[in-house]
Amino acid sequence: MYDLNTLGKKAKSASRILAVTGTAAKNAALEAVADALLSHTDEILAANEKDLEAGKAAGLRESLLDRLALSRERIAGMAGGVRKVAALPDPVGQLVEGHTLPNGIQLSKVRVPMGVIGIIYEARPNVTSDAAALCLKAGNAVILRGGKEAFQSNKAITKVMREALCAAGLPQDSVALVEDTSRETATALMKLNEYLDVLIPRGGGGLIRSVVENATVPVIETGTGNCHIYVEGSADLQMAADIVLNAKTQRPSVCNAAESLLVDASIAEKALPVIAAKLSQKQVQLRGCPQTCRILPQAVPATEADYDTEFLDYILSVKVVAGVEEAVAHINAHGTGHSECIVTKRYDAAQQFTAGVDAAAVYVNASTRFTDGEEFGLGAEIGISTQKLHARGPMGLLELTSTKYILRGNGQIR
Amino acid sequence: MYDLNTLGKKAKSASRILAVTGTAAKNAALEAVADALLSHTDEILAANEKDLEAGKAAGLRESLLDRLALSRERIAGMAGGVRKVAALPDPVGQLVEGHTLPNGIQLSKVRVPMGVIGIIYEARPNVTSDAAALCLKAGNAVILRGGKEAFQSNKAITKVMREALCAAGLPQDSVALVEDTSRETATALMKLNEYLDVLIPRGGGGLIRSVVENATVPVIETGTGNCHIYVEGSADLQMAADIVLNAKTQRPSVCNAAESLLVDASIAEKALPVIAAKLSQKQVQLRGCPQTCRILPQAVPATEADYDTEFLDYILSVKVVAGVEEAVAHINAHGTGHSECIVTKRYDAAQQFTAGVDAAAVYVNASTRFTDGEEFGLGAEIGISTQKLHARGPMGLLELTSTKYILRGNGQIR
Repeated sequence: MYDLNTLGKKAKSASRILAVTGTAAKNAALEAVADALLSHTDEILAANEKDLEAGKAAGLRESLLDRLALSRERIAGMAGGVRKVAALPDPVGQLVEGHTLPNGIQLSKVRVPMGVIGIIYEARPNVTSDAAALCLKAGNAVILRGGKEAFQSNKAITKVMREALCAAGLPQDSVALVEDTSRETATALMKLNEYLDVLIPRGGGGLIRSVVENATVPVIETGTGNCHIYVEGSADLQMAADIVLNAKTQRPSVCNAAESLLVDASIAEKALPVIAAKLSQKQVQLRGCPQTCRILPQAVPATEADYDTEFLDYILSVKVVAGVEEAVAHINAHGTGHSECIVTKRYDAAQQFTAGVDAAAVYVNASTRFTDGEEFGLGAEIGISTQKLHARGPMGLLELTSTKYILRGNGQIR
Repeated sequence: MYDLNTLGKKAKSASRILAVTGTAAKNAALEAVADALLSHTDEILAANEKDLEAGKAAGLRESLLDRLALSRERIAGMAGGVRKVAALPDPVGQLVEGHTLPNGIQLSKVRVPMGVIGIIYEARPNVTSDAAALCLKAGNAVILRGGKEAFQSNKAITKVMREALCAAGLPQDSVALVEDTSRETATALMKLNEYLDVLIPRGGGGLIRSVVENATVPVIETGTGNCHIYVEGSADLQMAADIVLNAKTQRPSVCNAAESLLVDASIAEKALPVIAAKLSQKQVQLRGCPQTCRILPQAVPATEADYDTEFLDYILSVKVVAGVEEAVAHINAHGTGHSECIVTKRYDAAQQFTAGVDAAAVYVNASTRFTDGEEFGLGAEIGISTQKLHARGPMGLLELTSTKYILRGNGQIR
C-alpha cells in the first residue's frame, strides 16, 4: 500500500509554514515556479512524450491525446497562468468582519488558508500547475492526484515546482503528487481526514460521483452542467436563436454549454423554426417532445433520459412548456444546478425565473457560456461548484480559504 | 424500510415554496409556531412523560433524563427561542457582491436558502424547535432525526409546528421528523443526496464520527472541543488562574470548556501552584507531565491519551512547555480546532499564537467559554463548526444559506 500518511503529514507541516508566510514571499515563489517551468521545458516535454506514447499504445481517443499533449506553447501558457495567479490579490489576512463584544472583547473574523487541499483530476497535465498555484497563493499545501495517463508529465511538472519552491525558501512539500495512480490509493486519499481539509474533484461525472460516494474528507462537488435555455413567450426570437446557438455550439464539451431548450407553447410554432434554422449551421441534432417533433420534421423524439443528459456534443433536447412556472419546475427537476437562462422581454417573467430557479448562475438574456471564473472577474478558477455548501459557481482564491475568529481580551471570563 | 424518499421529496417541494416566501410571512409563521408551542404545552408534556418513563425503565443516567425532561418553563423557553429567531434579520436576498462585466452583463451574487437541511441530534427535545426555527427563517425546509429517547416528545413538538405552519399558510412539510429511529434509517438519511443539501449532526463525538464516515450528503462537522489554555511566561498569574478556572469549571460538559493547560517552563514553579490552588475550589483533578507532577504533588501522571481527550468533566491535563512555539505545535497536534487561548502580556507572543494556532476561535487573555453564537452576537446558533469548509466556529442564520449568481444581460453571447 502506497504511504499516503507520510505524504499527508509532510503536507500538513508545510501548510503550517505557508499559513504564516507573507504575500511577497508567496509571490516570489510563484514567479520562481513560472521561471522553472520555462527553463525545464525540455524535461517536461520528454516526460509528456512518454505519456503520449503509452497513450497511443493503449489506444486512447484522439481527443484525449490532444488534452494530454504538451508543447512549448502550452508550457509557456502554464507558466503565464502561474504568474497571473501571483499577480492576484492575496485573500489571506483579509478582515471579514469585526466588532467589540459588550464585555469588551475585540472580535475579528479573518480569512485564513484551508490548510491542505486535495485535488483529484483527469488527463490534462496543465491542471497540475494551475491548481498548485491557486492553492499556494491562498496559503495552502496541495496534494495532487492526477490521472494515470498523464503520470509522467505530472511527475515532471511537480518535480520542477518542488525544486523551485525549495530554492525560493518555501517548503517543497507545499506541493505533492500522489505517485501511485491505483484506485485503492485514490480511495484512501478520499478518507485522509487527519491531514486533508478539503477535497476537490475535477473531471467527468464518473469521477465526481466516485469522490462524493467515497470521501469522508469534506468535498466541493464541481462541474456537471445540464444547462437550459428557456425561450419565454415574449422573447426576441433573433436574440433567442443567437443565445441558443452560442450556448450550445461555441464549445459543446464544457459544463456551461446548453443541453436543453424549453420554448413556450404560445410561440413554439414561430420560434422553433427560427432557432432550428440557426442551429442547422452547426448540424445540431434536436431531440424533441411530441409537439416539437410536429413543428420540426427534422427533430427526433426525445426519451425521458434525454432531459437528464449532459450531452457535451452537438445534441440538444427540446421541450414545449406552458409558461414560466412549468419551465422553472422542469429545470429544478432535471437541471444539475449549474447555469440556466431565460430569454424574455417581460419583467415579471425575468423576476419569477431568477427567484425560482435553483442554480449557481441564473441568466436573463445572455448565454450560459459566461459561467467561468475569468468571465466573472475572479482572475482564475479552480472549478465550478454545483453544491450549495461553502461555494457555489466559479471558485477563485477566496473559495480556497476559510476563516478564523480572533478574540482579544484583558481577562474576561464568563 | 422506512420511506425516506417520500419524506425527502415533500421537503424538497416545500423548500421551493419557502425559497420564494417573504420575510413577513416567515416571521408570522414563526410567531404562530411559538403560540402553538405554548397552547399545546399539555400535549407536549404528556408525550415527554412517555419518553421519561421509557428512559427510566431503560435505566438512563440521571444527567440524560435531565436533558430529556421538559417543563412548562422549558417549553416557554422554546417558544421564546422561536420568537427570538423571528426577530433576527432575514439573510435571504442579501446582496453579497455585484458588478457589471466588461460586456455589460450585470452580475449580482445574492444570498439564497440552502434548500433542505438535515439535522441529526441526540436527546434534547428543545433542539427540535430551535433548529427548525433557524432553518425556516433562512428559508429552508428541515428534516429532523432526533434520538429515540426523545421520540415521543419530538413527534409531539413537530406535529404542533407543522399544524401551525399549515395554518399560517406555509407548507407543513417545511418541517418533518423521521419517524423511525433505527440506525439503518439514519444511515440512509446520510445518503439522501437527491433531496438533502446539507446535513448537520449535533451531539457527541460518536454521532459526529458516524455521520462523517457514512454521509455522502455534504456535512458540517460540529462540536468536539479539546480546548487549551496556554499560560505564557509573561502572563499575569491571577488573570491566568481566573481564566483557567472559568474555562474549566463554569460548565465542564460543553465543547468550549478547557481540557488542557500548557505552562511555560520559565514560570511553571510559580504559576502552577497558583492555578492549582484556584482549581482546588472545584476539586479539579490534574493529570500532569513529569515536570508538573514534580511541582504539584496532588497531580497524577498524564498518559499520552489524556492530551487528546475531551474530558467534559472536572479533569484537566497539564503540560510544561518551552515557549510559544512548542505550545502552538502541541495545540495544532492535539487540539480539535475549536477554541484556544493564550494568557500573556507580550505583544509578540500574542501575535505568534493567534497566527500560528489553527482553530475556529483563538483567544488572547479571555476564557474559551465565549465561543458561542449568542456571545459572538449572531443572535442564535445551530452549532459550532470545527471544519474549515463553509463555516467555522459558531453558526447562525447566515451559515444556513448559500448564494446564487444572477446575471442580467441584453443578448450577450461569448
